Amino acid sequence: MADNTRSSHIADQREAGRHQVLNTIRSAGSIARIDIARQTQVSPATVTAITSELLDAGLIEEIEPNGGQGAAKRGRPRVALTIRGDAHLIAGIKITDRCATTILVDFDGNTVGDHEEPLPSPEMTPKDLTKVIKRALTSATTAVGRDMTDISGVGIGLAGLIDARRNFIYWSPSLDARNVEFGHLLETALPFPCFIDNDANLVAKAEQKFGEGRGRSDFIVITIEKGVGMGIVLNNEIYRGGRGCGAEFGHIKVQLDGALCRCGQRGCLEAYVGDYALLREANIPGSTQPENDLSALYKQAKAGDAMAKSIFDRAGRMFAMGLANVINIFDPELVILSGEQMAYDFLYGQDVFERVRANTVQVDTALPEIRVHKWGDLMWAKGAAAYAIEQVSNSTIQRLAAHDA
Amino acid sequence: MADNTRSSHIADQREAGRHQVLNTIRSAGSIARIDIARQTQVSPATVTAITSELLDAGLIEEIEPNGGQGAAKRGRPRVALTIRGDAHLIAGIKITDRCATTILVDFDGNTVGDHEEPLPSPEMTPKDLTKVIKRALTSATTAVGRDMTDISGVGIGLAGLIDARRNFIYWSPSLDARNVEFGHLLETALPFPCFIDNDANLVAKAEQKFGEGRGRSDFIVITIEKGVGMGIVLNNEIYRGGRGCGAEFGHIKVQLDGALCRCGQRGCLEAYVGDYALLREANIPGSTQPENDLSALYKQAKAGDAMAKSIFDRAGRMFAMGLANVINIFDPELVILSGEQMAYDFLYGQDVFERVRANTVQVDTALPEIRVHKWGDLMWAKGAAAYAIEQVSNSTIQRLAAHDA
Repeated sequence: MADNTRSSHIADQREAGRHQVLNTIRSAGSIARIDIARQTQVSPATVTAITSELLDAGLIEEIEPNGGQGAAKRGRPRVALTIRGDAHLIAGIKITDRCATTILVDFDGNTVGDHEEPLPSPEMTPKDLTKVIKRALTSATTAVGRDMTDISGVGIGLAGLIDARRNFIYWSPSLDARNVEFGHLLETALPFPCFIDNDANLVAKAEQKFGEGRGRSDFIVITIEKGVGMGIVLNNEIYRGGRGCGAEFGHIKVQLDGALCRCGQRGCLEAYVGDYALLREANIPGSTQPENDLSALYKQAKAGDAMAKSIFDRAGRMFAMGLANVINIFDPELVILSGEQMAYDFLYGQDVFERVRANTVQVDTALPEIRVHKWGDLMWAKGAAAYAIEQVSNSTIQRLAAHDA
Repeated sequence: MADNTRSSHIADQREAGRHQVLNTIRSAGSIARIDIARQTQVSPATVTAITSELLDAGLIEEIEPNGGQGAAKRGRPRVALTIRGDAHLIAGIKITDRCATTILVDFDGNTVGDHEEPLPSPEMTPKDLTKVIKRALTSATTAVGRDMTDISGVGIGLAGLIDARRNFIYWSPSLDARNVEFGHLLETALPFPCFIDNDANLVAKAEQKFGEGRGRSDFIVITIEKGVGMGIVLNNEIYRGGRGCGAEFGHIKVQLDGALCRCGQRGCLEAYVGDYALLREANIPGSTQPENDLSALYKQAKAGDAMAKSIFDRAGRMFAMGLANVINIFDPELVILSGEQMAYDFLYGQDVFERVRANTVQVDTALPEIRVHKWGDLMWAKGAAAYAIEQVSNSTIQRLAAHDA
């Protein structure tokens, strides 16, 4: 038994070494073996053995730096290693209430193509959503002369309460059913693995890989669209909580017995800042406010209409209070406000940030940095693809590890 | 340079191995070398080398299992290793508004003695608090026939905003000054290292080592005394946040522009559930409520007085809302409500727990477990001592590591 434990320890170390080496090559872009050894503190001999395996598996490739020039002059050229983009075709999808935005990337994260698949309805049966996803992936691959079966894995981001570790959806506004084994459903319909996560977590992943979170081990992302979401990165990992549905922000309570939320509870942040909440407030008998047009309401507020201004003003104050609470609890170094809809500009204003500061516990040191980062659905999809690249890398390395035994 | 990196990697591994071995012996109570190797997956040869160092350093000792009986029958006896209690005398102190509760423990965590040192005033100058601490440690050691200079390290828990990593106090109700380099102050006055932390963090440490958090990698502790505090354990570590003042609970906002808090902000949870907040509400002209006697107010409420009941009822509802928000954000497996004062029983009631449930985002799986764990100041002090044992172990191992170079 001691021997088994011992050899499994060695296998664990080898597997950890593979992850380290692959991640180092990915972050560096291209890097020589000796520099991998320096950066990872894995021995040069082990780096050589691991890179040889990864080359055989087709995950990385050798390139000569400077296009091979100067190699002769200085003796043996230092061959660099780089991720082999062609190793895998990966997809990322963001489901909104209007469409499935799809991006195709290679294994190195370079965009290969993208596609927007309209949804038949904002809320669907799990089977219908599966069909939409299949259609989106078929169209996206066909458009770039590839086949859907070329895909190695797809990351999918949805709003809602999702246990990513189980590919399980407790609840999503995109589905007409609760507690859906959506991972199983997708994997019977599609010939490659699918990785489902809450969309705000995938924005956090996108910020970590391509955005404002690069090089930061700990930060919080607040997403502002129809609802508000949150992704938390602690120690370089997405924080998920015990049941997989941590980092809830839209349904934290900002008012005891407050406004009714579409979730059925009272006083949720979303019941004050969500589209429907703003329009609901404007719904006063005899009022001249536009009832179903948020952008018109917002224009009125900008133009100085007192009632419209009051609606957005309270929403901003409630949002500031919720954000300050998250800062009080996490004391993060960086908060990124991420989203696309201009309608939510009222949440990005200096007065909102001032209120956040006023509600944050005061110590005589700088407050956490708050950055605003606006981007579109395609970037959310890219976060989904980045998540899928990680998962496909992990399973490839696990397959290599299976050969160790 | 590659060689330096490589050898520093080996040194890091050796240091990590020492921590692993010492922690394994500490958790096991007593354990044979071969079992340490099995549990830690460190090689038997390395375990032998490390335990020999730890024996030389006097941190551990050998004992024969079963008092040496049966050894002859079955060949070479398996000598077990155990923490050498005499290795270090460690102190833990909890500062309240009344006294400095001190515990002395040996390096194995066994209680050696305890002492209560009254405070001249709830709020003191940093120098005066230093004197109180020195007096407490002198009395505690003298009472057990030891000398204060025998102590190897002391952990100190205070309410307030504290950066434990820097031994720095941003603010504490026990001090009349802000931004105090209290660690420096203590270390000029005392001949051993001091480790300062927020008191709720040290309760979390106590729960982890001796209480309801044993064997749990992730949990949240809410402390209820004069104020409310929070300690968060994630992945077996106390979560501290970017500036060291994370896990704030008493000053999260539960009401926009709400009741004035003694921190100067409005709507803080403490401004609804703290002693002063409850008494303030009772302060109505012509009212028969006792103005400065919380226990009398509580008795009235228990006896059915409508106004007194209403005061505790709202406090309970605000508390439930704050606790539900923490659960929504962290989705923890376990929440421990920890405290001593019976006056706060109204926060531990089933109706409060029902309200927490009603305000937690609903998914079709069990809600986090909430456990109530009542204990006194001595247990808080024991958490401080546990923290000091960890820190003293770490610095001893760092000294061993210095010999590696």
